[in-house]
Amino acid sequence: MTASDLRRVAVVGGGLVGGSFAAAVRARGAAEVTITDVDASVRERLAELALADRVAASVADAVGDADLVVVATPAPVVPEVIEQVVQHAPRDAILTDVASLKYDLILNVESRLRLRSAGPHRFVGGHPMAGSERSGPDAADPELFAAATWILTPSAATDDEVLGRLAAFLRSLGARVLALPAERHDELVALVSHLPQVVASVLADVAGDAVDTVGEAVLAVAGGGFRDTTRIAASDPALWLGILTGNREAVLEALDAFTTRLAVVRAALDEGQDAELRAALSRASAARRRLVDKGAPGPAVDLVVGLADRPGSLAVATTALGEAGINVEDVAMRHATEGRRGVLLVRIAARDADRGCRALQQRGLSVHLEEVDPGTAAPG
Amino acid sequence: MTASDLRRVAVVGGGLVGGSFAAAVRARGAAEVTITDVDASVRERLAELALADRVAASVADAVGDADLVVVATPAPVVPEVIEQVVQHAPRDAILTDVASLKYDLILNVESRLRLRSAGPHRFVGGHPMAGSERSGPDAADPELFAAATWILTPSAATDDEVLGRLAAFLRSLGARVLALPAERHDELVALVSHLPQVVASVLADVAGDAVDTVGEAVLAVAGGGFRDTTRIAASDPALWLGILTGNREAVLEALDAFTTRLAVVRAALDEGQDAELRAALSRASAARRRLVDKGAPGPAVDLVVGLADRPGSLAVATTALGEAGINVEDVAMRHATEGRRGVLLVRIAARDADRGCRALQQRGLSVHLEEVDPGTAAPG
Repeated sequence: MTASDLRRVAVVGGGLVGGSFAAAVRARGAAEVTITDVDASVRERLAELALADRVAASVADAVGDADLVVVATPAPVVPEVIEQVVQHAPRDAILTDVASLKYDLILNVESRLRLRSAGPHRFVGGHPMAGSERSGPDAADPELFAAATWILTPSAATDDEVLGRLAAFLRSLGARVLALPAERHDELVALVSHLPQVVASVLADVAGDAVDTVGEAVLAVAGGGFRDTTRIAASDPALWLGILTGNREAVLEALDAFTTRLAVVRAALDEGQDAELRAALSRASAARRRLVDKGAPGPAVDLVVGLADRPGSLAVATTALGEAGINVEDVAMRHATEGRRGVLLVRIAARDADRGCRALQQRGLSVHLEEVDPGTAAPG
Repeated sequence: MTASDLRRVAVVGGGLVGGSFAAAVRARGAAEVTITDVDASVRERLAELALADRVAASVADAVGDADLVVVATPAPVVPEVIEQVVQHAPRDAILTDVASLKYDLILNVESRLRLRSAGPHRFVGGHPMAGSERSGPDAADPELFAAATWILTPSAATDDEVLGRLAAFLRSLGARVLALPAERHDELVALVSHLPQVVASVLADVAGDAVDTVGEAVLAVAGGGFRDTTRIAASDPALWLGILTGNREAVLEALDAFTTRLAVVRAALDEGQDAELRAALSRASAARRRLVDKGAPGPAVDLVVGLADRPGSLAVATTALGEAGINVEDVAMRHATEGRRGVLLVRIAARDADRGCRALQQRGLSVHLEEVDPGTAAPG
């Protein structure tokens, strides 16, 4: 089970993420890739940039023989684009999207696919944790997803094999795949993506004000720390308005946690409580290092998970691992043979083996470890 | 008037900034550079890394024949190190430092130099707006200051020629030199450096907490936006405790401006005032682009400033430009000849010419423009 069984990929939407995805597929020779966009001038630019093997004039033309369709349009139109896609794509084409919020979107897409009898089992929501303050096909970068976490949010409806094949394909582009329940995804991105976005915007706004009150020197004084901290503030306001309002409750909660903590730091500074201030700075410094230094990949193990041979088993297992922060490096199924039940093989980093086993056992799954022969590229 | 008249540079303090400065001087062949550090193990590492031409065992040994001494020690010990330096350096050696806060430090250093009759006119406070969350000689980078703004904070005591020669030397390392009054410097860094530091720390701290409450998935979900926004949170807590408490009033004011604005954004999100939320995001996006996109250098002009031939004239002119956010590309003096008063030549970008003239006229200085022949490297 490798990427190689998805030979033809179609990308709908030629912006930063769609363009980068096509470019990544092309750069790695992972599949033949076709791209399309609703905007003729974007299609023209896509052709000039040669991000894909082919630029199609319509969704119908793009997806006709696709094994995998990636919908990378603006989030509000994803459900209707997927409805369009299933009218033209092969019945067994795998479908995914890249929108920043997953819970409501997935409910929406799955109901539409059910109503059309178009196979909700072959759709898996996705969200690559990679982006840029830039947008459009000119900002596309074939390395955008290298070493980035690509979150997949399988549901109870998702077919195991679809999830496994999509995950393998994404890994072949250099992404680290993490499966999460859609609700948990939305809660987490409020904290590590939407909150930083609001904070960066307010920082840039306050500094921008100071140009008017204090003078142009603000522009010159702003150094690397300011540049990094506010980089994402330059992102597209319309896109972010949609994300923030779409995830309102979780974002408000994250903002309140932030504001409460900021007030504590302010009080410590104001009242000369140096020990408390230093403790806050030290805790933050340690947290930052822990959050970002993920270390080298290291050796792997396979978790052999005994499961009833029914759909959704892989989603249960991989999202349990995802919630424990464990990337899935590869997955495979050993189907039932006479007298034996089928098993899932889930490859994870050896250092995560104990936590991974516990996470699965807590869901009532039976699991044992198999060492990975360093010579084998994939389990199964 | 070029960098070439400062032939021997001594750096006291072999951390990130001192080590990078030595490495930059060496990489560009700008001068012969000696470095020293109070810590023997740091000196050993400096020698292994060959960041300077020579590693000296003591301040006395390092500065004996220096034309320029850069004190890059931790801020609290800068005044006493400078006292030590002046006991061993040539009488006309130029002295500067790189500490993050300038007002109190400069008062302190200048009084000590006056008490010792050691020439406060030859000291200019400095602060390169470049850094890293890393520290120590191993983090040194000869390109750290390339295209970074290097703030100089000349006072009424500063000699014009000293300021001009130091500025020229820093420019020869690729830095953009901006002169500011020390108080204004401290106020501005509160806004564009200290406030972002606190905010980044609190963001990292809140996310760190979530690892305990929500689980390890937080680590995997944190993408590029989170990484950029919190990068500086990994900085040295002890260093930042000193900076924040040393600039307490200005930092509190910046924090309050930030908190007020954040509350407005929160309310807009909470109450569904989408237009207001979008306006805030748009304003921030525009501000970020304006604050960071400084554009290409472009052609230059010389401001010819008529001045009484007295010390401090250049400081008045350059800090007036600095407060207008105008970098000084080069400076020179045409000394008085019979029947004519001396003039200063201050080279700035042609696009800043009008604003530059106004800034100087507002200080009561007479000024006119001279076109720069593209063939000439420096005025004078």
